[in-house]
Amino acid sequence: MAMIQVEQVLRMKEGTDETSYVKTSYIQKQVLLLTKSIKEKAIKELYCKERPEILCIADLGCSSAESNTLSVVSELIETVENARRELENRKQEYQVYLNDLPRNDFNTIFRSLTKFTNQLKLRMGNGFGHCFVNGVPGSFYGRLFPSKHLHFVHSSYSLMWLSQVPQGIEDNKRNIYIARTSPPNVLRAYYEQFENDFFNFLKCRSEEVVFGGMMVLTILGRKSTQQYSKESSYEWELLATALNDMVLEGYIDEEKLNTFNIPQYTPSAEEIGFIVEKEGSFTLNEADISEVSWESKEHEYCKINSYKAFDPYDFVKCMRSVAEPLLISHFSEAIIEELFKRYREIVQASMANDTNVFINVTVSLTRR
Amino acid sequence: MAMIQVEQVLRMKEGTDETSYVKTSYIQKQVLLLTKSIKEKAIKELYCKERPEILCIADLGCSSAESNTLSVVSELIETVENARRELENRKQEYQVYLNDLPRNDFNTIFRSLTKFTNQLKLRMGNGFGHCFVNGVPGSFYGRLFPSKHLHFVHSSYSLMWLSQVPQGIEDNKRNIYIARTSPPNVLRAYYEQFENDFFNFLKCRSEEVVFGGMMVLTILGRKSTQQYSKESSYEWELLATALNDMVLEGYIDEEKLNTFNIPQYTPSAEEIGFIVEKEGSFTLNEADISEVSWESKEHEYCKINSYKAFDPYDFVKCMRSVAEPLLISHFSEAIIEELFKRYREIVQASMANDTNVFINVTVSLTRR
Repeated sequence: MAMIQVEQVLRMKEGTDETSYVKTSYIQKQVLLLTKSIKEKAIKELYCKERPEILCIADLGCSSAESNTLSVVSELIETVENARRELENRKQEYQVYLNDLPRNDFNTIFRSLTKFTNQLKLRMGNGFGHCFVNGVPGSFYGRLFPSKHLHFVHSSYSLMWLSQVPQGIEDNKRNIYIARTSPPNVLRAYYEQFENDFFNFLKCRSEEVVFGGMMVLTILGRKSTQQYSKESSYEWELLATALNDMVLEGYIDEEKLNTFNIPQYTPSAEEIGFIVEKEGSFTLNEADISEVSWESKEHEYCKINSYKAFDPYDFVKCMRSVAEPLLISHFSEAIIEELFKRYREIVQASMANDTNVFINVTVSLTRR
Repeated sequence: MAMIQVEQVLRMKEGTDETSYVKTSYIQKQVLLLTKSIKEKAIKELYCKERPEILCIADLGCSSAESNTLSVVSELIETVENARRELENRKQEYQVYLNDLPRNDFNTIFRSLTKFTNQLKLRMGNGFGHCFVNGVPGSFYGRLFPSKHLHFVHSSYSLMWLSQVPQGIEDNKRNIYIARTSPPNVLRAYYEQFENDFFNFLKCRSEEVVFGGMMVLTILGRKSTQQYSKESSYEWELLATALNDMVLEGYIDEEKLNTFNIPQYTPSAEEIGFIVEKEGSFTLNEADISEVSWESKEHEYCKINSYKAFDPYDFVKCMRSVAEPLLISHFSEAIIEELFKRYREIVQASMANDTNVFINVTVSLTRR
């Protein structure tokens, strides 16, 4: 697994069927709701201070769930339009960039854009300028945009994905992520990979974001100062349980499991703050911690999405759409159905006794 | 057919299989070779005069044939890089926009971008800046880019596609395009639709292209001043023959054929010049007419593409990848195999006796 090209295999499951990311990204949507006010505050501040002729906004790691990425874009634009009217400013042009890895399913997003821009025009009413939406395929750990080009950068639930599986973690046997039984060198390797990747991310963005430009980043993270904490690892521990069971029963080769590790790191707010400080191009305005239950606020959620009543199965679907491409590339497609059948049982048993949550760390940054 | 949404059905056949546009767009590639010098001359002139910090280039109607659209991008950048070195200028950043309708298969292009940019860097050597490639889904008959943003626009074999089938051509019976037997009102309606669309195209680009910016547009057209000419209509006449045969034999409903018309117009250089003049934002620097045989320069072509020796079947594949989505949306998928079997026979018979060519009109324009 250390040798896999994360860029080639990491992607949310494409298409629009029942198991696709588009249809299952409930939790990601909830997170966007939780972080709405911090995003709105930031873009309003940016707009009122800079008032650029063309406001360039990027959503990094947009995935193929067009309703998520486009609802963020729509909220950001609505906030700016309200501020613009208060200031009695001229018509505003928006250039919106949706970024993800080249194997992301951009076709699904692009096919809903005509409807999106028509609805946006309608909702924003007279005096609305133009909104141009572009796709930007590439890794955000490298340069993606021209110098001094962006005014506002948003990213949600993407920066915990590492550019590669950390090297030198061969002894993380039977685990697939940082776990209770992971040796210290594994914890260190995971953190160092994150520090390196996040530092590169900030460095690249520091070239691309104008002075005074802002970023709001939400990262799946943790509250605990300990690198291992149940809140930041438990979904993978349960998946490891299912995989280990399948090893015991001969479905999966033990060596195959021992060489599989998830290219993800769930940082604390302190770790993020430390790296921001170290890189030095951005000022940290605020850091916010929020929680989202694996079970979600079901009633509210059903209302918003007109989905039928919550079923723990949905959490598994959500995890599956995220992990399936990685799992297939390492283990082959043959194990997938059996694996997620077992994972569902394990998750249901856990949720009957425990309240499991994801922790989100959101930071608002300004380019110095 | 008059009611179809061209935006929804017009696209080159997606994917990468034997019948896809990617694998069959031989003629389009030849056209790009034929128009190489006019593109190079224009972008060199633009660059030496303007020397923008970030050079913004758009390819409008890029299709899913990534080797075609990316080879154009690569040639343009190489020309600029050569000029840059002569001028001993600083590193140049490029922002490249690939545009097509939202149903175009952008995924296929995006998945070859990493390889493309790596090869570009390698070929351009030390001192090469950055090249950022973005996808821009939308119709070029509307606004696609912010104001005063683009320096160079390229479009090849796209602007002959109309935004809609001309209205009021119900009496173009048994024909599917302008044909020898089309009544005068059909000819007029086709021209008026083209004039209207091309005028809108120029109006939108006039907002987006900086003063002094340039466009090189290649349009499938005609040499003749007559609107009907074999050179500009024959591929569709032969397809109409196959469709009419299938009507006679009961495969296709006559009424269904009578309501099918291709949303395309093949203009003359004079017509293009007239509309450019009428719209008024661009100066016509030069117009060039070139020809490409249906049979192509087979030996040269095989060499370039390492395809096996020419077979007239290839022309049919090329036409099929262009026309299939339109045909399916009107007639249903059921007729396609039979239709193209017959079309192949008719084309082979014609090519045994005749030399059939496509006429390309290329214009170079500067924003006034």
